[in-house]
Amino acid sequence: MAMRFAHRMEEIRASEIREILKLTEKPGVISFAGGLPAAETFPVAEIGQLSQEILAREGSRALQYSATEGFAPLRRAIAERMNRTRGTAVDADEILITSGSQQGLDMSGKLFLDEGDTVLCESPTYLGAIGAFRPFGPRFVEVPTDDDGMITAELDARLTRHGPVKLIYAIPDFQNPSGRSWSAQRRCEFMEVVARHEVPVIEDAPYAEVRFEKHGLPALKSIDPMSQVIYLGTFSKVFCPGLRIAWIAADPELLRKYVLIKQGTDLHTSTLSQQQVHAYIERFDLDANIARIRETYRRRRDVMLAAMDRSFPPGVRYTRPRGGLFLWVELPEAADARELLERCLEHDVAFVPGGSFFPNGGHENTLRLNFSAMPPERIEEGIERLAQVMKSFLKG
Amino acid sequence: MAMRFAHRMEEIRASEIREILKLTEKPGVISFAGGLPAAETFPVAEIGQLSQEILAREGSRALQYSATEGFAPLRRAIAERMNRTRGTAVDADEILITSGSQQGLDMSGKLFLDEGDTVLCESPTYLGAIGAFRPFGPRFVEVPTDDDGMITAELDARLTRHGPVKLIYAIPDFQNPSGRSWSAQRRCEFMEVVARHEVPVIEDAPYAEVRFEKHGLPALKSIDPMSQVIYLGTFSKVFCPGLRIAWIAADPELLRKYVLIKQGTDLHTSTLSQQQVHAYIERFDLDANIARIRETYRRRRDVMLAAMDRSFPPGVRYTRPRGGLFLWVELPEAADARELLERCLEHDVAFVPGGSFFPNGGHENTLRLNFSAMPPERIEEGIERLAQVMKSFLKG
Repeated sequence: MAMRFAHRMEEIRASEIREILKLTEKPGVISFAGGLPAAETFPVAEIGQLSQEILAREGSRALQYSATEGFAPLRRAIAERMNRTRGTAVDADEILITSGSQQGLDMSGKLFLDEGDTVLCESPTYLGAIGAFRPFGPRFVEVPTDDDGMITAELDARLTRHGPVKLIYAIPDFQNPSGRSWSAQRRCEFMEVVARHEVPVIEDAPYAEVRFEKHGLPALKSIDPMSQVIYLGTFSKVFCPGLRIAWIAADPELLRKYVLIKQGTDLHTSTLSQQQVHAYIERFDLDANIARIRETYRRRRDVMLAAMDRSFPPGVRYTRPRGGLFLWVELPEAADARELLERCLEHDVAFVPGGSFFPNGGHENTLRLNFSAMPPERIEEGIERLAQVMKSFLKG
Repeated sequence: MAMRFAHRMEEIRASEIREILKLTEKPGVISFAGGLPAAETFPVAEIGQLSQEILAREGSRALQYSATEGFAPLRRAIAERMNRTRGTAVDADEILITSGSQQGLDMSGKLFLDEGDTVLCESPTYLGAIGAFRPFGPRFVEVPTDDDGMITAELDARLTRHGPVKLIYAIPDFQNPSGRSWSAQRRCEFMEVVARHEVPVIEDAPYAEVRFEKHGLPALKSIDPMSQVIYLGTFSKVFCPGLRIAWIAADPELLRKYVLIKQGTDLHTSTLSQQQVHAYIERFDLDANIARIRETYRRRRDVMLAAMDRSFPPGVRYTRPRGGLFLWVELPEAADARELLERCLEHDVAFVPGGSFFPNGGHENTLRLNFSAMPPERIEEGIERLAQVMKSFLKG
């Protein structure tokens, strides 16, 4: 039967990453395309033990419907943790538990965006955010971004020219896809500009705690006197992603609107999963787990960069991330990373072409590499393969 | 800071049930307002045991990102179960796992509805569906409904008059809020009419297996030669709601569109929760659990109806549901159930006024009572209190 769909469906298409991941499923392929956290860091035994304890203690309450806002002790634990590790000053009632950060993005689109509204974002930006916002019909305006983050003068100019802008979306820490992190000064300048323009900011911070250096940089939310920052945090990269536990931290009045939206979207997030995360934080040492993750990823990044330094051809530039899961490669301007990918797949190595990370297209000479998901030996071998294909590809 | 929100936020307001539930939290209140399944039927010990087994067997895979479509063995188990218990003929690849049925409703709104589109529904209909669709700006047209279900001639007339209608939403089994079930003949007539008009139908079936009589009636999806029915099933009422595991069954091409939407909405549903439900189905007897639930609820319904028959004043009519969690009361036409509720709260008994279940308002003389959530003695006492208040209220 021929069905008529909403017009927004014309904007919704399969993620390119997803299609590439299918091609990389055959054995022998070394894929830098995905973005999986290292599974060996997940606290498997602990969650098994805690599940029994929770069900023995809480009984059927752990399996019943629960509050849209989330499990109160988990909201408190998240607020305390954010204030300690990110320098914020949020209360438990400013936290809403979400089913992954992706839900925070979808709900932000629903809350803010009418068709034709303008969203400012970094260039490049996170593919999942483009996918979450696109169904609400916004116009994306990319703000030029350098190694220190979004360029503040360019942001200011665009806020003036395209005003009123509905929303700014940013990933200040170890960005997906670029691996870049904003400098402290850039963060302060950014907050000064957005305060002057009175525009809400989504600070997406999944990687902030996955840093390889001793000290982190302040969350935008920690230098937010006008409460205009909506902070998206998640346990996916510091604990495990499969439970889908994340959160939104925002001004209480704004949070109430998100709660109303969540009611209509999925009522609430899994009661038991929330209790599992909370019990882990209470009973085990999440900081120690994060330290293990940092060490694992830092070593993988080191191995990848060393292999790239050794073997990549001249004229290919790349970022040197100080945290996160990804790094970013720029080929000479005329090269097309999608064509390179086709050649690479013939040699059993894969990555994601960078074009998809620019909502308005272009930049086809870029690509994203993931370094979190496989052991150092595989990374070395994969980079060797990639470098070989790259050399012959760039020679023409 | 003054923020500008999407226009749709003008349509999104707090659910009246939620506000009433807050008032009923004080001790001593007997509340028929909620819709909680009986917690004593949840398989608490089994899920604890299975969680450890799953984590021991699956290891980190149970905590990793997983496919948007859902856990393949669970999709197979659901398809088999539906085909056995509901008379359908669906394949595993026609099943998408969702985070509760509410997510199926939200995604259906996103998939089908542009502003101003027409949605046909029963009168009354499920509040959560109104809340899920409303943000997408549809016009609701209520189809008159009697004890046999949606009145087919009225449906036909409205499909002709308001065409093209974008979507029909229906709950054929033990409807929330009315407790009514569609007759077999009405189901067949309905499918004939909607096939003629070629309009997609959402069949929301959370209560279908919670029936008090031996035989169920055919799912609309089982008499759907044109594959126009989108079936929403859930484990919330036959297993437990806290894990938020539900599903959409639809034609594969249509399902792919839902998968695209789910990618942008929350990536996927909790990996571990899906495996817990699957392991329970494999290792324990879900049918026996459902038999216990049926027996529990049937007794509660009997007790409630007997108490109502004894004590309700004349002129008050009510449904006699053959399944589900709710029954529906109509006061004399001039009476206002919201005013009655205020008096009832003074006497520590509560319900949900029925007006909210009509998307276009009116019908303020109706109310919904839940019979699943409390033991028979409390039901009897609560109905006694309600009857007393009702008598003095109706006398004026």
